[in-house]
Amino acid sequence: MSSNFRSDIRFIKLALELAKRHIGQTGDNPSVGCVIVKKDRIIGRGVTGQGGQPHAEMEALTNAKESCKGATMFVTLEPCSHFGKTPPCVDKIIAAQISRIVCPLIDPDPRVSGTGFEKLKGANIEVDVIPIAREWAEDVARGFISRLVKDRPFVTVKLAMSIDGKIATESGDSKWITNKFARAHSHLLRVKNDAILVGTNTFLKDNPELTARGTFERYCNPLRIFLDQHLKIFPSDAMLKNLTNSPAMIVCGINPNLNNLKIWRDSGVEILKVTSSDRGIKLTKLFENLAKKGLNSVLVEGGGTLVQSLLLARLIDELIVHRSGLILGSNGIPSVYEFEKMSQEIGVFPRMKLQSVNKYDDNIETIWKPEK
Amino acid sequence: MSSNFRSDIRFIKLALELAKRHIGQTGDNPSVGCVIVKKDRIIGRGVTGQGGQPHAEMEALTNAKESCKGATMFVTLEPCSHFGKTPPCVDKIIAAQISRIVCPLIDPDPRVSGTGFEKLKGANIEVDVIPIAREWAEDVARGFISRLVKDRPFVTVKLAMSIDGKIATESGDSKWITNKFARAHSHLLRVKNDAILVGTNTFLKDNPELTARGTFERYCNPLRIFLDQHLKIFPSDAMLKNLTNSPAMIVCGINPNLNNLKIWRDSGVEILKVTSSDRGIKLTKLFENLAKKGLNSVLVEGGGTLVQSLLLARLIDELIVHRSGLILGSNGIPSVYEFEKMSQEIGVFPRMKLQSVNKYDDNIETIWKPEK
Repeated sequence: MSSNFRSDIRFIKLALELAKRHIGQTGDNPSVGCVIVKKDRIIGRGVTGQGGQPHAEMEALTNAKESCKGATMFVTLEPCSHFGKTPPCVDKIIAAQISRIVCPLIDPDPRVSGTGFEKLKGANIEVDVIPIAREWAEDVARGFISRLVKDRPFVTVKLAMSIDGKIATESGDSKWITNKFARAHSHLLRVKNDAILVGTNTFLKDNPELTARGTFERYCNPLRIFLDQHLKIFPSDAMLKNLTNSPAMIVCGINPNLNNLKIWRDSGVEILKVTSSDRGIKLTKLFENLAKKGLNSVLVEGGGTLVQSLLLARLIDELIVHRSGLILGSNGIPSVYEFEKMSQEIGVFPRMKLQSVNKYDDNIETIWKPEK
Repeated sequence: MSSNFRSDIRFIKLALELAKRHIGQTGDNPSVGCVIVKKDRIIGRGVTGQGGQPHAEMEALTNAKESCKGATMFVTLEPCSHFGKTPPCVDKIIAAQISRIVCPLIDPDPRVSGTGFEKLKGANIEVDVIPIAREWAEDVARGFISRLVKDRPFVTVKLAMSIDGKIATESGDSKWITNKFARAHSHLLRVKNDAILVGTNTFLKDNPELTARGTFERYCNPLRIFLDQHLKIFPSDAMLKNLTNSPAMIVCGINPNLNNLKIWRDSGVEILKVTSSDRGIKLTKLFENLAKKGLNSVLVEGGGTLVQSLLLARLIDELIVHRSGLILGSNGIPSVYEFEKMSQEIGVFPRMKLQSVNKYDDNIETIWKPEK
């Protein structure tokens, strides 16, 4: 392993750490990290700005402490070569006389994929795709990739539950199942996603705020999306207040209650109509819609009916379970509703793969991925 | 920290590791470990034999490679000073001219507690109780301590469940929720306990073998205890075969079905009658009975009704959860039955403390202790 390779790894990891800082804060753009290095010293760094501008490369070039001539740029996603909200980064990189680019990830957008690298190569800049880092870079840009490749946001489901898999007591008390560390982490998860989605029962019973509180208040809050297929929930004062306080949207099916619809709309709450059937709102259609709105990632916070539907439709990309030592018994509210009409053989039920385990004091977080 | 202290820690840990090997294999005796050290070299070692004899100290003295005169003995429990099944160990230790004993744990039996140490001191043997190791030694002897101090065995509950807390599909399919590593570990747990206990539904639906299979076949199998308050389960051929194949006992209440009782007894199956009420068999009475039979530890393998009763009676000393990435939905068989007539506020529900976390490939084991 050459020392050059080892230092490449080190700097691209730094660029990835920078990118992680703004995940969920860059609008429909991916959060990109960039480090400019000259003679093994960092002379500039950048991360995509809040809302998506400036781009990381521009930021790094702009705040570079000295001339970038002959320097190496480490960037977590292929620099753009087209005019969007900002002029193309590749032109600026060429103008700055960067001599080498280390970048593990080609832009997933098929319309631009590879053209950034080609333009750079055409200007005699060495392009190194450092394959070992590709998976890391894909993970950081997973929301953006999902939207462009699958036409839907990256879907994370987060559930806080008891040892025996319950998310509340029979009467609905859920404050608190998990400890303050797990709850703080949940608020961090919110700012790392572009939207938060909850099912009808959770909306009806809890009228949840779904905002990032505590340390994360100064961050961009995600769009809050509430499901209510028939708009059966009457917009109480408390609900109207909650939904107009910060960005919110209600998703209904094709035959909503027109009276409630009018009240919500008159109060300025956005209502999104989505194809629906007896089996509920068509979730693939909902996610297509959200992707069209530029949402890269959605955090689902329950309840059990929504999670069951997502499992059946194979729409979960990541499941995060926060679990405490509480035991609520079989009449507690289930984390996953029943799979009707399914064979009772264990082999047919959904099975996730354990990705990682973290302890938050006396609570435990397990992260699961779908089996391929 | 003196080097003497550090080597004391090292050798007492070795003695504890030896003791762990025979947990569940020594009848009503605790599994004790013993290491004899001379000039920093181990010259003898022993562990309580299968069934409880010989004692660890005797074993270590007998297999010592050279004279024990002037040596230090590390032993995990106070040596006995009374005639039981074997002559008192302290006499043999004195005769062997051991000069120092390192032992963190006084015998919990109030009738003998401390007399072993006194006799040794009277013979001018230095006794060092090394307080830092006391908790470790208590943990290794926890079954024996529980029986002597609380008049009941140490109770471990082990449950294999899905992410959402189910132990089987609605129809009862539970093969397999967890992977082969978790299942092998369950067999290890069986040989580490003196008895295994299951509730009525588990008995009726699964007629489980509850023997330690695989690598552990050559070990002593625990007594299998099946609950059936009313003896409502008819002894089918399969059940009779299962219960007479290796040691088994059925526990019933005060008004069992006399026909079934006769069939079980005629086939040689032991029936234990225990005080019972509408709420089931009185579990504290059952455990008192088991303690009187000399059982130091019981492993409970479900189902949800038994676990709920144990939780309500605060009889669980340790809860081991093996969990896979399976999701079974709300109509699966619950791991813990409902707490009837209980307030619905979260604060009143049982809450355990996380003790440790282990990964078995893609399964996860969490070990929980009751909150004090």
